[in-house]
Amino acid sequence: MDIHSISTNCTRAEYVGRAVLDTIGLVISGADEKLLAQMGIGGKYRALGVYSSRTGAAGQLTALDEAVKATSTEVLTIELPRDTKGWGGHGNYVVIGGNTLSDARRAIEIALSLTDKYVGELYISEAGHLEFTYSSSAGRVLEKAFGAKYGQAFGFLAGSPAAIGLVMADNALKSAEVEIVRYMTPDRGTSHSNEVILAFSGEAAAVKAAVLSARAIGLELLIAMGSYPNVPGTSYLED
Amino acid sequence: MDIHSISTNCTRAEYVGRAVLDTIGLVISGADEKLLAQMGIGGKYRALGVYSSRTGAAGQLTALDEAVKATSTEVLTIELPRDTKGWGGHGNYVVIGGNTLSDARRAIEIALSLTDKYVGELYISEAGHLEFTYSSSAGRVLEKAFGAKYGQAFGFLAGSPAAIGLVMADNALKSAEVEIVRYMTPDRGTSHSNEVILAFSGEAAAVKAAVLSARAIGLELLIAMGSYPNVPGTSYLED
Amino acid sequence: MDIHSISTNCTRAEYVGRAVLDTIGLVISGADEKLLAQMGIGGKYRALGVYSSRTGAAGQLTALDEAVKATSTEVLTIELPRDTKGWGGHGNYVVIGGNTLSDARRAIEIALSLTDKYVGELYISEAGHLEFTYSSSAGRVLEKAFGAKYGQAFGFLAGSPAAIGLVMADNALKSAEVEIVRYMTPDRGTSHSNEVILAFSGEAAAVKAAVLSARAIGLELLIAMGSYPNVPGTSYLED
Repeated sequence: MDIHSISTNCTRAEYVGRAVLDTIGLVISGADEKLLAQMGIGGKYRALGVYSSRTGAAGQLTALDEAVKATSTEVLTIELPRDTKGWGGHGNYVVIGGNTLSDARRAIEIALSLTDKYVGELYISEAGHLEFTYSSSAGRVLEKAFGAKYGQAFGFLAGSPAAIGLVMADNALKSAEVEIVRYMTPDRGTSHSNEVILAFSGEAAAVKAAVLSARAIGLELLIAMGSYPNVPGTSYLED
Repeated sequence: MDIHSISTNCTRAEYVGRAVLDTIGLVISGADEKLLAQMGIGGKYRALGVYSSRTGAAGQLTALDEAVKATSTEVLTIELPRDTKGWGGHGNYVVIGGNTLSDARRAIEIALSLTDKYVGELYISEAGHLEFTYSSSAGRVLEKAFGAKYGQAFGFLAGSPAAIGLVMADNALKSAEVEIVRYMTPDRGTSHSNEVILAFSGEAAAVKAAVLSARAIGLELLIAMGSYPNVPGTSYLED
Repeated sequence: MDIHSISTNCTRAEYVGRAVLDTIGLVISGADEKLLAQMGIGGKYRALGVYSSRTGAAGQLTALDEAVKATSTEVLTIELPRDTKGWGGHGNYVVIGGNTLSDARRAIEIALSLTDKYVGELYISEAGHLEFTYSSSAGRVLEKAFGAKYGQAFGFLAGSPAAIGLVMADNALKSAEVEIVRYMTPDRGTSHSNEVILAFSGEAAAVKAAVLSARAIGLELLIAMGSYPNVPGTSYLED
């Protein structure tokens, strides 16, 4: 078999598109009944949207959150594999259900188109990484993934090596009045990633202030480790 | 200590050999009693064969399956660490028992000699990887590792990022009548790898058709992510 | 935001310093009450020392063991994320408590200053890695992390791919009379790393002999895989 005879312009009906950080978006029409039984997602949907990345979690989940809000779809499963291509964090793997294939496809298209924006607060240096997200109104994806309060502002921070995450978490909580909805460490809630993660809900101004304060100290600590991070997207949170 | 004084031509009795994908094969003669108690493998065998790789699972397990069939040995433990040297999948770690040291050594020698062939359906690109295996008659290793039906044809597919694995699984099940024996995702059954995995048993023609159909779509989707995979072995399944 | 405007000379009060293997040491003063509740470390300490690395476990924990012995601090949590920047092992993440911020800071300073020494028995090649540690008298950190007998000599070995670890474990137990305190494999006790790990306590001469014997065979097997390891620290155990 000559794999180089295969085009990079995929014409399969299942292929929707790709985005940064090794993200791919796909759809399944009339999903196989035996597969649905294994997946444990019930029998309501046979049109599925599938989205996954090698690197990044909260940013892409925020893009998916917007996509599910904007379409008649439902998020079915969210999993965070231990990945990041050798770095200390997660990738993501999400399945959504649609009443029609075009609903599922539309949701994946929107998620892919928003991915570049919402991964904008990911910073990866030689030593480690930082990830942040902010949503002014959390939807079902962020609720399911991190226990975000539906309809409230939502903030997320992750730092690796994990010590940076803990100091950012402490800093965020001291900087504004927010409610912790998820606290994760290498042995608790993560897939053994080298991160401390804090997710929180609250008033928009407080949540944003907490994220920005954590980002400020997190970047200083990460850079103190000796190298400057790359930003695979475009930073979207401004003071 | 000058490590460069150590030869790459190892003369230890424990060393059997090595193969692609950072695979090493070893034997232990008269395994220590205290160690055997910790390993939880009973007291039947004190001659052990040990095999492990940094990258790859189903391919190497198929090589071991043939090796155990061909010798008077028994597979004792199979573990799939989260590895692949920064990629999204597994390595492997297998212990077999032999009534004599030469039985254990012979099994490991055979497994190493078959490794190049059976890792032939591993495809690793910049974005992710695909792994397939096919056996016309599953033995005790594939039975223990994935619940393969003993003596039946066996097929295996894994795709990373995980979304590709799910679409391959759906495609395989639609393409031929096979029985699912194992379904794995980042949170279910894997070591948090970024994969969806499907293992299945059935009639030889159906199992092979399912593997080949999944491989065709999997390669198209992986290549759509923007880079062509390397094949560390030699592809052995032909249409 | 211009991240290059941030200096690598960090002036935050939380920053203590860094060491090899992407190790960072930090302190938290007056830790946030809501965070302490999430951390599950009780309310005794509000001055925390935080230490974590991308690569390495036993070596750094031995440095922390000495640091806690030398100060009025207590080790609160030890976690071993699946990391090593693409290699098959762990990083580390440790939180200690101090009655005062200066106690916590002093402990982290000592741990960082000893890190270069105690990671000296880490060997990383293209194929895999080996890690050893030896302490003539285990303290609270090694006791908490690996069940070391407090006040006794302690030894540790880890080998990756995992098969090398098993052969080293067998070799160590045959070479000297030591007591196993922890046995770990990809599916047992590790974060799914590609390692077999053995930790043991006993008489100083026996423990040291077991470590040195395991190191000798481990290096021969690792080098037999085709490449020589790098030693990020300086080997400190001599025959």
